[in-house]
Amino acid sequence: MKTTLILLSFFLCQGLYSQDQPTKRARDLGIPFEGTPGKYNNITDVPGVEVGYKTLIEGEGALEVGKGPIRTGVTVILPLGKKNGRIPAGMFSLNGDGEFTGSHYINDYGKLPGAAIGITNTNSVGIVHDAIGEWQYNKFSDKRMEDFTFGLPVVGETWDGGFNDVYGFHVKKEHVFEALDSAKSGVIEEGNVGGGTGMWLYGFKGGTGTSSRVITIDSISYTVGVLAQTNFGDRDELLVAGVPVGKEIQDLQPIFKDPRSDGSLIVVVATDAPLLPNYLKQVAKMVSLGMARTGSASGNGSGDIFLAFSTISPTYNDNYTEINWKVIPKWKLDPIYRATVYATEEAIINALVAAETMKGANDNMMYECPEERLIEILKKYNRISD
Amino acid sequence: MKTTLILLSFFLCQGLYSQDQPTKRARDLGIPFEGTPGKYNNITDVPGVEVGYKTLIEGEGALEVGKGPIRTGVTVILPLGKKNGRIPAGMFSLNGDGEFTGSHYINDYGKLPGAAIGITNTNSVGIVHDAIGEWQYNKFSDKRMEDFTFGLPVVGETWDGGFNDVYGFHVKKEHVFEALDSAKSGVIEEGNVGGGTGMWLYGFKGGTGTSSRVITIDSISYTVGVLAQTNFGDRDELLVAGVPVGKEIQDLQPIFKDPRSDGSLIVVVATDAPLLPNYLKQVAKMVSLGMARTGSASGNGSGDIFLAFSTISPTYNDNYTEINWKVIPKWKLDPIYRATVYATEEAIINALVAAETMKGANDNMMYECPEERLIEILKKYNRISD
Amino acid sequence: MKTTLILLSFFLCQGLYSQDQPTKRARDLGIPFEGTPGKYNNITDVPGVEVGYKTLIEGEGALEVGKGPIRTGVTVILPLGKKNGRIPAGMFSLNGDGEFTGSHYINDYGKLPGAAIGITNTNSVGIVHDAIGEWQYNKFSDKRMEDFTFGLPVVGETWDGGFNDVYGFHVKKEHVFEALDSAKSGVIEEGNVGGGTGMWLYGFKGGTGTSSRVITIDSISYTVGVLAQTNFGDRDELLVAGVPVGKEIQDLQPIFKDPRSDGSLIVVVATDAPLLPNYLKQVAKMVSLGMARTGSASGNGSGDIFLAFSTISPTYNDNYTEINWKVIPKWKLDPIYRATVYATEEAIINALVAAETMKGANDNMMYECPEERLIEILKKYNRISD
Amino acid sequence: MKTTLILLSFFLCQGLYSQDQPTKRARDLGIPFEGTPGKYNNITDVPGVEVGYKTLIEGEGALEVGKGPIRTGVTVILPLGKKNGRIPAGMFSLNGDGEFTGSHYINDYGKLPGAAIGITNTNSVGIVHDAIGEWQYNKFSDKRMEDFTFGLPVVGETWDGGFNDVYGFHVKKEHVFEALDSAKSGVIEEGNVGGGTGMWLYGFKGGTGTSSRVITIDSISYTVGVLAQTNFGDRDELLVAGVPVGKEIQDLQPIFKDPRSDGSLIVVVATDAPLLPNYLKQVAKMVSLGMARTGSASGNGSGDIFLAFSTISPTYNDNYTEINWKVIPKWKLDPIYRATVYATEEAIINALVAAETMKGANDNMMYECPEERLIEILKKYNRISD
Repeated sequence: MKTTLILLSFFLCQGLYSQDQPTKRARDLGIPFEGTPGKYNNITDVPGVEVGYKTLIEGEGALEVGKGPIRTGVTVILPLGKKNGRIPAGMFSLNGDGEFTGSHYINDYGKLPGAAIGITNTNSVGIVHDAIGEWQYNKFSDKRMEDFTFGLPVVGETWDGGFNDVYGFHVKKEHVFEALDSAKSGVIEEGNVGGGTGMWLYGFKGGTGTSSRVITIDSISYTVGVLAQTNFGDRDELLVAGVPVGKEIQDLQPIFKDPRSDGSLIVVVATDAPLLPNYLKQVAKMVSLGMARTGSASGNGSGDIFLAFSTISPTYNDNYTEINWKVIPKWKLDPIYRATVYATEEAIINALVAAETMKGANDNMMYECPEERLIEILKKYNRISD
Repeated sequence: MKTTLILLSFFLCQGLYSQDQPTKRARDLGIPFEGTPGKYNNITDVPGVEVGYKTLIEGEGALEVGKGPIRTGVTVILPLGKKNGRIPAGMFSLNGDGEFTGSHYINDYGKLPGAAIGITNTNSVGIVHDAIGEWQYNKFSDKRMEDFTFGLPVVGETWDGGFNDVYGFHVKKEHVFEALDSAKSGVIEEGNVGGGTGMWLYGFKGGTGTSSRVITIDSISYTVGVLAQTNFGDRDELLVAGVPVGKEIQDLQPIFKDPRSDGSLIVVVATDAPLLPNYLKQVAKMVSLGMARTGSASGNGSGDIFLAFSTISPTYNDNYTEINWKVIPKWKLDPIYRATVYATEEAIINALVAAETMKGANDNMMYECPEERLIEILKKYNRISD
Repeated sequence: MKTTLILLSFFLCQGLYSQDQPTKRARDLGIPFEGTPGKYNNITDVPGVEVGYKTLIEGEGALEVGKGPIRTGVTVILPLGKKNGRIPAGMFSLNGDGEFTGSHYINDYGKLPGAAIGITNTNSVGIVHDAIGEWQYNKFSDKRMEDFTFGLPVVGETWDGGFNDVYGFHVKKEHVFEALDSAKSGVIEEGNVGGGTGMWLYGFKGGTGTSSRVITIDSISYTVGVLAQTNFGDRDELLVAGVPVGKEIQDLQPIFKDPRSDGSLIVVVATDAPLLPNYLKQVAKMVSLGMARTGSASGNGSGDIFLAFSTISPTYNDNYTEINWKVIPKWKLDPIYRATVYATEEAIINALVAAETMKGANDNMMYECPEERLIEILKKYNRISD
Repeated sequence: MKTTLILLSFFLCQGLYSQDQPTKRARDLGIPFEGTPGKYNNITDVPGVEVGYKTLIEGEGALEVGKGPIRTGVTVILPLGKKNGRIPAGMFSLNGDGEFTGSHYINDYGKLPGAAIGITNTNSVGIVHDAIGEWQYNKFSDKRMEDFTFGLPVVGETWDGGFNDVYGFHVKKEHVFEALDSAKSGVIEEGNVGGGTGMWLYGFKGGTGTSSRVITIDSISYTVGVLAQTNFGDRDELLVAGVPVGKEIQDLQPIFKDPRSDGSLIVVVATDAPLLPNYLKQVAKMVSLGMARTGSASGNGSGDIFLAFSTISPTYNDNYTEINWKVIPKWKLDPIYRATVYATEEAIINALVAAETMKGANDNMMYECPEERLIEILKKYNRISD
């Protein structure tokens, strides 16, 4: 557990977060970010959005396939909470050495084909896919979905092999159901939770991070929320608020007996701004720019795939012969793009700050980013004032 | 000139076309097509759409670069006539050995960046691009365009080199202005006109063809119009109404002293159905299916690039803070797709029927498809009744 | 069971197929197609390719979710048989209302991420995905895959809901393993088998079909093989060899108590021609043209997604620092495109001819295309000689 | 003119650049960047690559369309110098409110269709397109190009309207020829030159910038070079070496009588690393990350379109029946990606540092970034040591 005493007083004074906040956050350390966050500074600040986790941590020592150790999980995002709907969406692959299903439907018809998005480890994409489908069917069987109930679930992944018994297939349907049923808004966890449990970040322990921005367009307030499952980056690359933190902390490298495969970044962007599908594809592209602000140059083995959705669906006339999209014009999109970039940056750094040191399979180790040193470095570069 | 006596009486009886129809048409020969055409069975059946041509035919004999012979031209399509606007659009490249500018804007923002579309020979893309821009600026300088006036003109091309002095750059700005200023709706020419002047089709003389379909969705009538600049296909491939006409007419092959480069198909689809940009991209894809019905398997040297637009723009609220797209729902799109496929097929065959035998540079020859034999073959396969 | 007596004598005379051919084929009825098929006229004519099926047919009467009736299955294609490798691949979505996983990897890096491709019903994508991954891991654990063993399995689907108890999730991992383990080359079944078991085609019973073409480029012989899982088309649209068969057979429409969702077409193209990944994407696009030759104009609810791969991988130098792609030049690709178009057409018609009348859940019925009438119609249009 | 005295002594000591370096450079100010630059730290460090400019600066005072003032030009990049060839290429649109022609060919067939790339103002795309085509034809008429000589020229643009008489069409064919004929390697200018003459950057004067990186893969040295035409960014966004310079310099905003349209970024990446076309598309995507390191979140009105090419073409066997691509494996690409990101960042900052204050049409003003203050700010944030 990290020493949080000094910081705790800091954020209690700020009054930003209640004592319910289960994990430390970058902003509380004084790290500067662009833009104004929403109430909880997480993706659920977008009205209606809920997040659920199932974290699986079990066993220690040598890896035995099928037995463990287990360091994995599943994260689910419900754009409309436990309600049904096909909402506008766009997807972008910065680097496609990964999976994020549902791409064809989203690319061609610009809607999210289902009521939940899952993020898990690489080998559990199938089971999460099926579980989301089954859950949707059971949940919404009383209410006909737009096309068909089971849909084409949208599931992304990053790789925790070597640290987690990824070939043991420990994520089960019931875990996914649990994550779905327990999804909620408000304060949510970050770091070693859900699909992010066994992931890394710039050679530190990483995992799940989230952030949000509130923007105003024509005096209407909108929220952009981001959730990131981080599993990428070499230490040298790490920038925090533009400061070359990675170069300054060269120790605390992960200990891996086996070579570690390359990493990935899955990001989901939510907004309550009404947008056309093709604008949402642009929003998904802009996630790349937020990733870059943390220093990464992506990588050939990375599955850096980004999804953006709006919770504001078009409306139908009475006999469903006409759809009415009331959307923000193209020339007003810049605040959305910026909010996406800045919230992505902060979500990634939040994952870094929240994740705690973890020992995995084969006693492989990933160390957390030491916050006192992080603060010192930011002071050295005058990005946190003494 | 073709012997049209017997046929003439046929279509006069049909009363489908006035004597103004300058070129013969496939339907008048009795060739069966799917669906119901609009009044003129051309792209201008879509209200507001105008087409203008400038045809350049000059000189005979040996090719001398810069002197001729000239067998080329330019075709322009004005989606809203001589009015300004940025209308929804989608683009698809079946085979990208060609050019159709404006692709980035259309792909990312789903609108046609300008008020006119040009189609010409490969080497005249630049001059037509600039001329459309200049014309738009002069025409609409009193009225601010959505973004900026000159825009990013949309110009496609097919290759008439070897038949036309394509390196002589004979298309001039004033030719493009002439085509733009003379654009009109109603009866329009086909065959050896405009950008299609020097083009071929399945080893016969080809060029420009057009067709339209009227469809009904929820008791509202819409029109889908197609204009094709054809320059593709080997004789053996040609199908007319599913009949292997190309295999049956093995003579009348083009006479080319120099090897002829591969061909291309540029198609523009217009509709007054209100559609989202991503639906229009799907419509553009469906052009491929219409092309296939005439027998082609495309080809590596083909620039088969298709553009679809809707003349129905979204509306704005008073202070331009909101755009309102009232569109046809996804699940009602099938009649649009079918109309696109069938009108594309007929537009191509119309180009085949309208084009007349032409002698080009270096006495190279392209022969028209002989209509009596065409009819005979269709009778042989019971697609035209005796 | 169909009366096959007359035809049997026909193809025994032809000597084309041994008595092992389990299902009737379009070519045996005398239906003309373009191009020259390979030995078995199926996808396994491409050396190394194997196909496995698991067909699940169980129960009758009223649909009870979880109990049946079951009319479904899974088809697997092993590009290199039971060998491992990452081969060049390309993917194209003509209409994305469907799923074919692995798209990001294939789009960005142009290789098939895994050693097997699965095709099943919509709701079984996840389980087939996981099963292929697990099978690959167990099969190839002795031999390190290029990146990692489980990979990002490639699984496509079409919808058999209403006819099959699709929400009963009857496809299990062991079924997929069985299909994988029993995969073979040589004669393979068509029609109501594997993933195609409960599918339709132009309002007739459809399912799985396959075909191949042998082509010569620079005196080297290559094979292009196609396997199609068909579940699309309205009766009126159906063309066979260009003949409007659908319009001629207006009876034998399917009997569905519940409205049937729209259909889809999944096609896999295999070749032993050495090709770059971007050329394979072009090959995948060309499948659209083959689909069009059978009459379809696609449809908004269709998942028409196509995958093409080459079994010829690049080679590596000794220390794996350089990859060597020896490929066919761009300007020689046309025979490949044509083979793809023609084999796709024939594979679809083969599915039509092979599929037999089936009663499904709730006594819903799909009728086979009556072959005697089919032949009569082709004779009427002079495409089969008397 | 900037005071360069102190700095001059600095880089003379460094011996990095000869006195020929016509413009100041970011690195000479001590600004830190990642990676190792090539000899000239510009795109021509990639062997064979040449760059030519034609800068048009004429007139002062009120804008009169057709007369001036003129502040524009054209930049050309010749990947193989004045040699012919079709080299591997990839293109990516981060935000498509702009033009970069040739996209279809590059996307589908992965080669640069021509021997030169042009970058100019928005309204001169056509004339530059035609001029490049004509120049290629005249230059290479003795040597047959792979497909056809004129090709499909690749021309990008950014918008200098309001500052330059962009509707006066002052770029003429002879200017383009001049740029092409004078193209050279070695030291090249930056800032207010060529197509970048009238452009801006984060509210300062911007223009053309370039940089390069030398990397080693398997003990072979490769170069990655970048040339950027910058015309984007709000002041507040500007980061230099991660330092919020834009927030620190709030004065020196541009003076524009008319509202200025949104900007754009065109980037061309060159490398002598042998790469597949799809890898080059990935390289083009990575440019986005370099842009992000300078602070931008793109913008809806931006034409941020990136092109990457390799000067290493595949080879052919004797009778042109086989192409042989010897390329770097996927898993070794990371140094290329990083070099692209870092060289893009530096090229943009080089444009900032090199550009000098300029007065344009209607006495509109764009101020250069004041270098003394820039250095002071970097010292304040400890990124340049005192």
